[in-house]
Amino acid sequence: MSPRRPGEDELIARFFRPLATAPGAARLMDDAATVPQIDGRELVVTTDAIVAGVHFFPDDPPDAIARKALRVNLSDLAAKGARPAGYLVTLALPRDWTVDWLEGFVEGLGLDQEEYGISLLGGDTVRTPGPLWVSVTALGHAREGHVPRRHGAAPGQRLYVTGTIGDAALGLRLRQDERLTIDWDLRRDEREWLLDRYLLPEPRLALADVVSAYATAAMDVSDGLAGDARKLAAASRAGALIDASQIPLSRAVRRAVNADPDALVSALTGGDDYELLVAIEPSDAEAFEAEAAAAGVAVADIGALVDGAEVVIEQAGRRLSLGAGSFSHF
Amino acid sequence: MSPRRPGEDELIARFFRPLATAPGAARLMDDAATVPQIDGRELVVTTDAIVAGVHFFPDDPPDAIARKALRVNLSDLAAKGARPAGYLVTLALPRDWTVDWLEGFVEGLGLDQEEYGISLLGGDTVRTPGPLWVSVTALGHAREGHVPRRHGAAPGQRLYVTGTIGDAALGLRLRQDERLTIDWDLRRDEREWLLDRYLLPEPRLALADVVSAYATAAMDVSDGLAGDARKLAAASRAGALIDASQIPLSRAVRRAVNADPDALVSALTGGDDYELLVAIEPSDAEAFEAEAAAAGVAVADIGALVDGAEVVIEQAGRRLSLGAGSFSHF
Repeated sequence: MSPRRPGEDELIARFFRPLATAPGAARLMDDAATVPQIDGRELVVTTDAIVAGVHFFPDDPPDAIARKALRVNLSDLAAKGARPAGYLVTLALPRDWTVDWLEGFVEGLGLDQEEYGISLLGGDTVRTPGPLWVSVTALGHAREGHVPRRHGAAPGQRLYVTGTIGDAALGLRLRQDERLTIDWDLRRDEREWLLDRYLLPEPRLALADVVSAYATAAMDVSDGLAGDARKLAAASRAGALIDASQIPLSRAVRRAVNADPDALVSALTGGDDYELLVAIEPSDAEAFEAEAAAAGVAVADIGALVDGAEVVIEQAGRRLSLGAGSFSHF
Repeated sequence: MSPRRPGEDELIARFFRPLATAPGAARLMDDAATVPQIDGRELVVTTDAIVAGVHFFPDDPPDAIARKALRVNLSDLAAKGARPAGYLVTLALPRDWTVDWLEGFVEGLGLDQEEYGISLLGGDTVRTPGPLWVSVTALGHAREGHVPRRHGAAPGQRLYVTGTIGDAALGLRLRQDERLTIDWDLRRDEREWLLDRYLLPEPRLALADVVSAYATAAMDVSDGLAGDARKLAAASRAGALIDASQIPLSRAVRRAVNADPDALVSALTGGDDYELLVAIEPSDAEAFEAEAAAAGVAVADIGALVDGAEVVIEQAGRRLSLGAGSFSHF
């Protein structure tokens, strides 16, 4: 026998109301939320959805599903130099949902609310005859006139990325094929690192103010560094020259690439990094690096915007061949 | 042979970019949108999703599905006295989606953008192995400090509704059971009226400024007047006494109720009205009615907030029995 499952009103009251800490959320007892304006700032808004079986594995832990749904949106705010204010979440529950699952989901949201200092502002719960999905809209505030767009870069500027690239892409491949642990000669902690990086991205909100201060263009890397660098360069009507040896790789990815050089292609064209790709004027590079270090976010200078329309990743003086070159979640 | 279907980037460029008319939408070529702040106004945000087979019929025209997804959100903005600024839409396409269908969907959004003077600000397109669904987040601006909440009403105040009540609920029943056309003795235009009102709600944005100026509490009626009046009264820690003879009914609903008195229960407890329920101080009633008339929105005084916790709908001096009394989309 399964325990009784609550209806929508009870579900909101019991599970989601405790997350609605902002006054404008009206304890989720209203049709809409209000978000205060802040002098000298402008509102930044973004939305992304994840679907079971498409963007995550249905048997992923519910707290990780919740956090991933939220974090992929917070990552977009970070890329636009915005501090998060709050979010709305729509959760579509399949026929076989359980109270236990929902408790885990809400616990995940609560952990991240605390980590990022945000409140649930509203949302919707619906039933679906299909797979579970989560849609999040995140709102933040950026300094007025200092929201770096994808199109603001120009030839001569430096290209930086945060963190390490390719972990999540290799983590996904490990999820799909266990034997790769052996093929890639991974130690247990390296395997765990890659799987965790796929499961739980780390939005670089700690860098948001620095991005707002220095970036001429920025975006988050969600569909693979190679393809996303092309998107930023194309939007800026420029090309880019990237030095593969400067792309920051974790120890786990380096070990996989040593064992199987093709893993580098996966690392650079797979998705789900949620690191930031940032264009910086050379004259700002030193200050940017210093402030990033002060913010506790590792950044690496991987190359430059150049004239033209091509994005080339060079390895030992040769152009790296990347095949299709970009991941698509669609 | 089905025609080639575009990938995500082409899909955004071809179908959605033309809808992104606001500068802050960055032609949908960025990770997030910006929304300008307006002096003396505060931001209002709401989100609602609809799922095929749950909230609409999979064979509904795609333009109507798009407009319904948008309008149920605009209705929430109207209830909070907010003028709409823009919206984000996430569309999950099932395996068998077609370009024709998407063209119709986008056409529907375009028609409503023009009607309500708004822009697409962003969104997401995803694939789903389940049924099609649409999630919309709508943003608007209301006069600062003049966002009527559900909890602001008090005993002695009048209760008003806009438009007519119950059309959509009976329209849904007609969709489910064609024979009701005969049972309810409906003329063809009356049948069409009910079906249309289910398919395409009319958000009462024309009344938003008047609601902001006069309402002590407001909400949109989406789950049936009886249940939603209970929600507003409960949030305001009051009861309500509603006179059934004053509830505005269309000619079609009146004819159905004449033929089958139980149809009144459906009309008052069914969902999808998307009319506004508004509490007004008696001393403001005359001005509210005059300004509503000037705005071209019919409003009807249906009763009053009273002491206590009960919401009673009286008909000919007797309490109307409504069974469960509220519709749930969940």
